[in-house]
Amino acid sequence: MTTLHVPLDRDQPVALARQIQAHLERLIREGHLGDGVKLPATRELAKSLSVNRATVALAYEELVAEGHARAHVGQGTFVVGTASVSRAPEPRTRAPINWAGLLSRSARIIAAEEDRWRRFAPGDVGTTTVSFAGGMPDSSLFPTESFRRVLNRVVRDEGDVLLQYYPARGYLPLRQYLARYLLRFGVETTADEILIVNGSQQGFDLIARTFVDPGDFVAVEQPTYPRALQVFRAAGAQLLAVPWAREGPRADVLERLLDRHTPKLFYCQPNSHNPTGLSMTVDTGRRLLAASARREVPIVEDGFDPSLNYGRRPATPLKALDADGVVIYIGTFSKILFPGLRLGWVVAAAPVVERLLGAKQLADHHTSALLQAAVYRFCERRLLDHHANRVGAEYGQRRTLLVEALRRRMPDGVTWTEAEGGFSLLLTLPAGLDAAALLPAAVARGVAFTPGRPFFVDGGGERTLRLSFSSVPARRIDEGARRLAETIKSALKRPRATGSERAAVPVV
Amino acid sequence: MTTLHVPLDRDQPVALARQIQAHLERLIREGHLGDGVKLPATRELAKSLSVNRATVALAYEELVAEGHARAHVGQGTFVVGTASVSRAPEPRTRAPINWAGLLSRSARIIAAEEDRWRRFAPGDVGTTTVSFAGGMPDSSLFPTESFRRVLNRVVRDEGDVLLQYYPARGYLPLRQYLARYLLRFGVETTADEILIVNGSQQGFDLIARTFVDPGDFVAVEQPTYPRALQVFRAAGAQLLAVPWAREGPRADVLERLLDRHTPKLFYCQPNSHNPTGLSMTVDTGRRLLAASARREVPIVEDGFDPSLNYGRRPATPLKALDADGVVIYIGTFSKILFPGLRLGWVVAAAPVVERLLGAKQLADHHTSALLQAAVYRFCERRLLDHHANRVGAEYGQRRTLLVEALRRRMPDGVTWTEAEGGFSLLLTLPAGLDAAALLPAAVARGVAFTPGRPFFVDGGGERTLRLSFSSVPARRIDEGARRLAETIKSALKRPRATGSERAAVPVV
Repeated sequence: MTTLHVPLDRDQPVALARQIQAHLERLIREGHLGDGVKLPATRELAKSLSVNRATVALAYEELVAEGHARAHVGQGTFVVGTASVSRAPEPRTRAPINWAGLLSRSARIIAAEEDRWRRFAPGDVGTTTVSFAGGMPDSSLFPTESFRRVLNRVVRDEGDVLLQYYPARGYLPLRQYLARYLLRFGVETTADEILIVNGSQQGFDLIARTFVDPGDFVAVEQPTYPRALQVFRAAGAQLLAVPWAREGPRADVLERLLDRHTPKLFYCQPNSHNPTGLSMTVDTGRRLLAASARREVPIVEDGFDPSLNYGRRPATPLKALDADGVVIYIGTFSKILFPGLRLGWVVAAAPVVERLLGAKQLADHHTSALLQAAVYRFCERRLLDHHANRVGAEYGQRRTLLVEALRRRMPDGVTWTEAEGGFSLLLTLPAGLDAAALLPAAVARGVAFTPGRPFFVDGGGERTLRLSFSSVPARRIDEGARRLAETIKSALKRPRATGSERAAVPVV
Repeated sequence: MTTLHVPLDRDQPVALARQIQAHLERLIREGHLGDGVKLPATRELAKSLSVNRATVALAYEELVAEGHARAHVGQGTFVVGTASVSRAPEPRTRAPINWAGLLSRSARIIAAEEDRWRRFAPGDVGTTTVSFAGGMPDSSLFPTESFRRVLNRVVRDEGDVLLQYYPARGYLPLRQYLARYLLRFGVETTADEILIVNGSQQGFDLIARTFVDPGDFVAVEQPTYPRALQVFRAAGAQLLAVPWAREGPRADVLERLLDRHTPKLFYCQPNSHNPTGLSMTVDTGRRLLAASARREVPIVEDGFDPSLNYGRRPATPLKALDADGVVIYIGTFSKILFPGLRLGWVVAAAPVVERLLGAKQLADHHTSALLQAAVYRFCERRLLDHHANRVGAEYGQRRTLLVEALRRRMPDGVTWTEAEGGFSLLLTLPAGLDAAALLPAAVARGVAFTPGRPFFVDGGGERTLRLSFSSVPARRIDEGARRLAETIKSALKRPRATGSERAAVPVV
């Protein structure tokens, strides 16, 4: 396809790219440009419309960001048809404001993402269901009573100061504690290189705001944590996938990719990886670091707590190997302590911390100093160490029970990652099955999981599903694995039924 | 000036605007384009460079956003020379990453803003100084002990649930309480139209992300809260000022401005306005609402707590008059209770709340449910009402003491706003004086204030300063006013000295 007429109103000065985008979007929605059709090269279309090539490139980027097209490096840009992208219904508007028409690009991307992944949520399941779907710590193991005592004490001792506005960097004793804590895992840092944030999610967000402009490339491991992908997408990034192998994200792919593009960042979870539970080898880490330093592409390391490690090797953060200071490390208390505190931290070179601090101040001034001080006291009294030992043993046992149950129960052709840390593993179904299509049948049999598709950047992952063992009591794990195995066996026996289920859940 | 040679590398597809911007920035920094020089019209420069006009417009917008130029509507774009914009030193970089080169547009805007306003902070002052600089509640009035008791109880009763991940909308009983609370002030809403956020600052931020794209116009009252301006600037907005009169933001200016531009939003603080302490009249409110509804431009109402009102008229939120649903209301517990909780809320039409919720989830998942539940119990037991009565009386007394002291002490030519609510008033110096230049002499005499310049969008405000009375004990207010009056009188007597001080603090 080489000719495409786009009517342009040239009196609208800054909106040419938007006009081209809107026109193509309409053609796609109305089916005039079908799924998989290759769009004209930017150079050709720019020439035929007498516009700058940058204008066409920008229009294409927007189409890609909103899911109407897919860019394949070196091949071009291809339409994603309406059959595979179902749009959210226009939000109910209340006269006289047409809110949908006022949304920013970022808001439109977020809305499209929410709609795209909604079908992959298992939904509410009954209490008799064994749910491997929740990737969170088990609240029945929470040290709530000992936390209550330190919190009460901290309000009594320092309440007036901690309840006033507080410096955005965070509570100094906590930052000093974190510097000592990270040293256990080989990370050398100081309180000045640490910024307290509202959980790792705010870490992603502040990093994306600070480094990513619309149209920038960001390299990401694959599979990976969907909420991190969404943050980079909402910032307007184009994502480039670096697949995981047994030893970690493939350094050869990253190297090749860095030679061809200039991504702003490379995002990965080197240890206790979500969803696979795998950990990177030190050799792979060194190779990733060398590639990053050589091409000046910072690595954003999403660090699961290294103490929740069940493998034979200790977990080594990339940041511990980072002699050049290229790693921006994100840590969190959400896995090892309480997600509801919304308490995490970022470790980076001082100039990076300065810029993240600027973004943090505009985002929400600072994180609650009261909760920071309470967690500091909890840590300082070694209550965190005590708790980490207890839950580490418990989660490790659940992990082993799940892996053993899978070995016992699963039919041939089913494979899974042997988690060395974290809360989950990734299971791959035999060819011909689709995890999202299997989910309703699984829930009907009393077992839930998270389909793997949202963990993949761009196609793929249909046969995968994530099993989180962290929230499932040990005594229920084997029964959950049995129900899942029965569901899979039943689907394998009825290829036609599986086929029709798949059609009901289009792969996007 | 009509000719300007900009070397362009056309093989860099998406970077033409950036190339033009970088070249002009270099010419400005090196002094080739001096302060006040008019840049060529976008149409002319586009023609001479054979690029799209949108490309030049984008380059100019970036220059304006970063403070290298100023756009005057209908007149053109003018250079802001290096003499008046002092740039932050390049952050210290640690080999091998040149972090400064990787920053996003938003991060560069935030860095430029920080540098621009740093000189306006009064800095650390001794305990003998009477500081009118802090716009915060007085922590010696905090109800810390009663809060400690409800917090302790809430951890005991609901801790396990509140410390787990929590739905992003917020704690339902708190949202229900807020709907009832707002009804006292005439705002009719429901829990579904309320989103809990980390203080009003996160409200600004989520609204900016959801509605503002780089280059969009945002109308803002003037003077206004600088941290709100910074959020909109960081989102890439071009700000249009609507000046305050005694009755509120000037509706005639807003109407004219809406006829000429299409801003995405209009931001204002209709009651207990920071810095003036004034409140809008109901008539002005109705006229602003009518203009907003007619042109489909939502109003972002930054609502100081209506119970901290010392005027003769009760404070009426714009949202209470908002029959058409055009107002997005932001509320906070930071003024009436504890800033350190980082707890606020947004009230808006349901489709807006849905989109803000999407942004909130990516920003930090949710606000601490534990703190939300504790504040709910505090409110439900009428402890907030009790506290509001107590601090309302105290702040009202401080406000009256300050106004009376100013009447007694200030020389002719000094004027001030008679605050009806809030924490501060705005004082205007006689012609020829500059508040920022006066600050060092004031601190030397033992009194501090906030220069007014950062509260103004684009020029102006040099003669104004903000006096916050909320944190100054009643017995020290008169002494503070006396010291300030002496400083002003002394500066009036020595015009030459004042002149040289002014030169040391360039107006930006």
